[in-house]
Amino acid sequence: MVVVMAPGATDEEIGRVVERVEGVGGEAFVSKGVVRTIIGLVGDIESFHHLNLRSLPGVADVHRISDPYKLVSRQHHPERSTVWVGPAEKQVPIGPETFTFIAGPCAVETPQQTLEAAEMAKAAGATLLRGGAFKPRTSPYAFQGLGVRGLEILADVREVTGLPVVTEVVDARDVAVVAEHADMLQIGTRNAANFGLLQAVGESGKPVLLKRGMTATIEEWLMAAEYIAQRGNLDVVMCERGIRTFEPATRNTLDISAVPVIQATSHLPVIVDPSHAAGRKDLVVPLSRAAIAVGADGIIVDVHPEPETALCDGPQALLGNDLRALATAVRQLPAAVGRLDASARTRTGRASST
Amino acid sequence: MVVVMAPGATDEEIGRVVERVEGVGGEAFVSKGVVRTIIGLVGDIESFHHLNLRSLPGVADVHRISDPYKLVSRQHHPERSTVWVGPAEKQVPIGPETFTFIAGPCAVETPQQTLEAAEMAKAAGATLLRGGAFKPRTSPYAFQGLGVRGLEILADVREVTGLPVVTEVVDARDVAVVAEHADMLQIGTRNAANFGLLQAVGESGKPVLLKRGMTATIEEWLMAAEYIAQRGNLDVVMCERGIRTFEPATRNTLDISAVPVIQATSHLPVIVDPSHAAGRKDLVVPLSRAAIAVGADGIIVDVHPEPETALCDGPQALLGNDLRALATAVRQLPAAVGRLDASARTRTGRASST
Amino acid sequence: MVVVMAPGATDEEIGRVVERVEGVGGEAFVSKGVVRTIIGLVGDIESFHHLNLRSLPGVADVHRISDPYKLVSRQHHPERSTVWVGPAEKQVPIGPETFTFIAGPCAVETPQQTLEAAEMAKAAGATLLRGGAFKPRTSPYAFQGLGVRGLEILADVREVTGLPVVTEVVDARDVAVVAEHADMLQIGTRNAANFGLLQAVGESGKPVLLKRGMTATIEEWLMAAEYIAQRGNLDVVMCERGIRTFEPATRNTLDISAVPVIQATSHLPVIVDPSHAAGRKDLVVPLSRAAIAVGADGIIVDVHPEPETALCDGPQALLGNDLRALATAVRQLPAAVGRLDASARTRTGRASST
Amino acid sequence: MVVVMAPGATDEEIGRVVERVEGVGGEAFVSKGVVRTIIGLVGDIESFHHLNLRSLPGVADVHRISDPYKLVSRQHHPERSTVWVGPAEKQVPIGPETFTFIAGPCAVETPQQTLEAAEMAKAAGATLLRGGAFKPRTSPYAFQGLGVRGLEILADVREVTGLPVVTEVVDARDVAVVAEHADMLQIGTRNAANFGLLQAVGESGKPVLLKRGMTATIEEWLMAAEYIAQRGNLDVVMCERGIRTFEPATRNTLDISAVPVIQATSHLPVIVDPSHAAGRKDLVVPLSRAAIAVGADGIIVDVHPEPETALCDGPQALLGNDLRALATAVRQLPAAVGRLDASARTRTGRASST
Repeated sequence: MVVVMAPGATDEEIGRVVERVEGVGGEAFVSKGVVRTIIGLVGDIESFHHLNLRSLPGVADVHRISDPYKLVSRQHHPERSTVWVGPAEKQVPIGPETFTFIAGPCAVETPQQTLEAAEMAKAAGATLLRGGAFKPRTSPYAFQGLGVRGLEILADVREVTGLPVVTEVVDARDVAVVAEHADMLQIGTRNAANFGLLQAVGESGKPVLLKRGMTATIEEWLMAAEYIAQRGNLDVVMCERGIRTFEPATRNTLDISAVPVIQATSHLPVIVDPSHAAGRKDLVVPLSRAAIAVGADGIIVDVHPEPETALCDGPQALLGNDLRALATAVRQLPAAVGRLDASARTRTGRASST
Repeated sequence: MVVVMAPGATDEEIGRVVERVEGVGGEAFVSKGVVRTIIGLVGDIESFHHLNLRSLPGVADVHRISDPYKLVSRQHHPERSTVWVGPAEKQVPIGPETFTFIAGPCAVETPQQTLEAAEMAKAAGATLLRGGAFKPRTSPYAFQGLGVRGLEILADVREVTGLPVVTEVVDARDVAVVAEHADMLQIGTRNAANFGLLQAVGESGKPVLLKRGMTATIEEWLMAAEYIAQRGNLDVVMCERGIRTFEPATRNTLDISAVPVIQATSHLPVIVDPSHAAGRKDLVVPLSRAAIAVGADGIIVDVHPEPETALCDGPQALLGNDLRALATAVRQLPAAVGRLDASARTRTGRASST
Repeated sequence: MVVVMAPGATDEEIGRVVERVEGVGGEAFVSKGVVRTIIGLVGDIESFHHLNLRSLPGVADVHRISDPYKLVSRQHHPERSTVWVGPAEKQVPIGPETFTFIAGPCAVETPQQTLEAAEMAKAAGATLLRGGAFKPRTSPYAFQGLGVRGLEILADVREVTGLPVVTEVVDARDVAVVAEHADMLQIGTRNAANFGLLQAVGESGKPVLLKRGMTATIEEWLMAAEYIAQRGNLDVVMCERGIRTFEPATRNTLDISAVPVIQATSHLPVIVDPSHAAGRKDLVVPLSRAAIAVGADGIIVDVHPEPETALCDGPQALLGNDLRALATAVRQLPAAVGRLDASARTRTGRASST
Repeated sequence: MVVVMAPGATDEEIGRVVERVEGVGGEAFVSKGVVRTIIGLVGDIESFHHLNLRSLPGVADVHRISDPYKLVSRQHHPERSTVWVGPAEKQVPIGPETFTFIAGPCAVETPQQTLEAAEMAKAAGATLLRGGAFKPRTSPYAFQGLGVRGLEILADVREVTGLPVVTEVVDARDVAVVAEHADMLQIGTRNAANFGLLQAVGESGKPVLLKRGMTATIEEWLMAAEYIAQRGNLDVVMCERGIRTFEPATRNTLDISAVPVIQATSHLPVIVDPSHAAGRKDLVVPLSRAAIAVGADGIIVDVHPEPETALCDGPQALLGNDLRALATAVRQLPAAVGRLDASARTRTGRASST
């Protein structure tokens, strides 16, 4: 940390900062400038936080220098991680060597619709099935999901298709039942700062798909992952899904740069959700291509057999020509940037050739 | 609702929209322009939502015209509401005729610190005590609050000072215990879209202080209030506390316009939190003055007997000269904009003279 | 400045930074932490900028500590400035002791409309007349203003009403002709980074009203003022007029906190434009009250005799009851926060009693 | 356009809207709902704008339905345009069939530095040279560019390398001299709403590279292009360069979705500037890959022979391994998304094979 003194801070005020820092076992290096004095702190950051230095007289500002997250940081874990999803015999990797395609309906509506969407997804190359049973909706009057019945449908469809299931959990009280049915727990954008829920999934023993809060900085998003990791669960996959900006042409602004920024900072895998970022069907294919090219470890996309009748987010669900174009991109483009298909790698670590 | 057809939409496509709308009992008025056709829908909005018109071929856009909230809207409830907080014999109003000053420490740390802060608050004119027992913190390594022990301290301090207590609840599982100790439940900015929690406080039987999500639009914020109201609780006070923008000089940007916008749209009272908006002690007094002048129904402010040692948000807590300046503003300025002191009005509805 | 080295930076890399800094006559104080090394720089900031330290191997980040503006900073000019507008015998002050009310039509349309608006403004207590002859419009198909003919109308109306004129200049090539007719030159929000224009008004010899860029940080806005000041013109009045955020209820979000932030940092006066911030007539009076209470040195408001037929921004122009309410606020509220009416102070420095 | 009446609007108020619309030759279709009445307007949009309907009593809102731009819209010009840059015999295309790589130094500093950067750019596959002679800088104390001397250096380097030159113009008074030396005029992000400058380049007879304003919506950006087009110049290339958001990890947030959004709406070519979007060297290659994959018609990138000593934006300039990686991406990836190299297409329209 660096403490910046106000212009005109007195020697006494400077001394008080130094004294406090040394009082908790730290070292303070004073640099006196013509106008301002800067004090560099060396030692245990946690203990400095409790000093509340910003409140001391003569202190203008306190800059944090090092990253506030630890377990998810790449600093002490330079190799990028792979998260494995699904039952032991057929686990699907999400990580640096492969490209993983996750698809399915926004919401589980009926067994028939879910199965059809899953088969569309599988035919297009998806190796994981997404689908919402618990839906967080802005309006209390909107469809809130089928709940446990939806989880059962997903589990049934997994039986038929063989695709492991990713589904959202919105309440800490539901974590147990969701973990019982699903292979991966999704934390949605609206719960990115729901710390009780983050801790609950951290204790669930299941891999977690952590969507970025729509107004979370990358640092805050990594702190959310740290909450999960701190409860012993390092199987966290970050998912960029657009941030809130002033631009109205898209529902959110896909922050494509977040992918390489996360990869430079954290060892966790990072994927992209182009459907919820754009909220427009016609942008899903180009944004998926961009996600592959920028180096994302996967994408998650809405598909629906009949978008016209979808109970949730129909306007962004793919089918027909668009889905075929996406399937082609997912089949061809990852190789152009040096990645295997997710189905080409097994837990033993030996990747079969594509 | 208004459906805007794409340029070149065919008569068949237009007919399909009309047919669907009529199929759920609505009426559709078609306006054919040179370039575009517009279809005005009349009838039950809810039923139109399920039609997923945006997915139909030839449809370019669907505009919602009326507000999506009902119970909190001023449309069918033109008179502005007053919310009463505290035990029957000494209830404190928050509403259009009075100005209510809420103050206390950001976090409850010790009985001594809480009592001192409460006495500072009371001496400065506060009629409600704020204080956090459960703290949502961005870092899992930061002080998370004293929990139930904190609630007990707040209840003890209420005994001594007579100030009813406002405190935050961060998890639906804690609503019962918080409601048992506190007079008003606060929903923090990070939980503004935690719908399970909103519903739980909606069933708690206690008045709710609903902070604006730091990236919530005013409409989304009112929808959060609608979640609470829909569970039978209309005792909701809205609290503007700054939104996230590109400006780094303040922690958030206080959206002072939100006060008259809410008052034009909703019957709920609305107050301002200048401490968390600015994150800077030197801005609390001017922003409090602005809040009074713009017509807010109250303010909520951090005070702390020793900000230097505060475990949470010390830099923004008031004391000494600043608190005296605030006390003066709270005493004098509301009258200049036609308001009574909150202590001057009683539940019987007769206001004693100030 | 503070240079933060990357974790694992070598002694050689650290030495290279020190060497460069010393090479331009600066001093470098090295603080070695467990993980990171921090280097505090003391000396001439300008010379450090040219070193491009951020590009050196091993450097993670460079933090600027002191403010980048000089002439407009309060650091070496602690007393807040007053800017005087208008001809010598009847100059109007904008500064810390007074509250100045500026009003007039958004655009000059006809002599009749301009005169009527000016008389409305004057009757409501305004001491300066605003009105646009050159209008920057987002669409090339919108009304662009009357140009020089508009300036002549404004000058004629000044003759009749005695109100000095504030008008916008949008092109460096027009500065001379605008300065010839007007008493104060306005730089609009879209030109806040038009550095050639800023320099041109800096050389004009007239006071300048500098609106905040709709996406400018406060620091960037002060740097724009520095551009004007650097050409020898310190008669700059800052005008907060709302920033661009995600909130759609208002055209822009009025950043009311910017007023005390500017006053803490710079000696320049700062006023508020509630009309353009909100874009809604019903918010102008409450936001004007907030501006007075927060400590602004004035406000600038749109009025129009017939808003229904206005060629520009009719929806936000005041008349009738709203204007009367504003006149009352402007007459009464400044005194409640310790200010004189602008008409009560003369250049001699002696303020007559209100 | 659609006029939405307030709840409770009277028949008289509705009649007044209809009357006004019909008064300018339009048609008004009234849809009466239970709560609200909606009026669809058909006819000449321009004439409706002058009616200022939003100011009429009983009117709650006015929604514009069709796009406000005309000449740059794809509506009446469905085929996407190609803009040709450079002298007749060796024109370089920017358009839908090719991928164009533009590179060079942020600022022209010396003949030697400019030539070296140009040769780096050419060796990496660039077919157009960028370089700034007039630099818009936030601080009046920063390097402002070499001006006309810089233009001469660029012209000399064009002689040697054969690369046509793209350079920024920041002041309408400089358009003539810049157009004399350069092959394409760049409008920078800070001048995206400098309408006088837009009109001046519209009359210059040279192709224009129009960077997006850092806080411009896509619609505003297209309106800026319309300003240029309206003066007779349709040779405009749009350049996405990042928008201002709350995320601090990158200097701006690259809005990659803007590329397909522009292509769906306008016939103009659109390219991406990953260097200024990110402000970080390590993100330039992944973001360039994303730009190619999303379907951009080109990229513009900073290169510098010695970033450590660059007078402007050194931290983002590429060299060495990064530049080689970029050259590989530019050579290989466009073909994977169906594009030719820009050098493979000539003005005659016949594309030679790659």
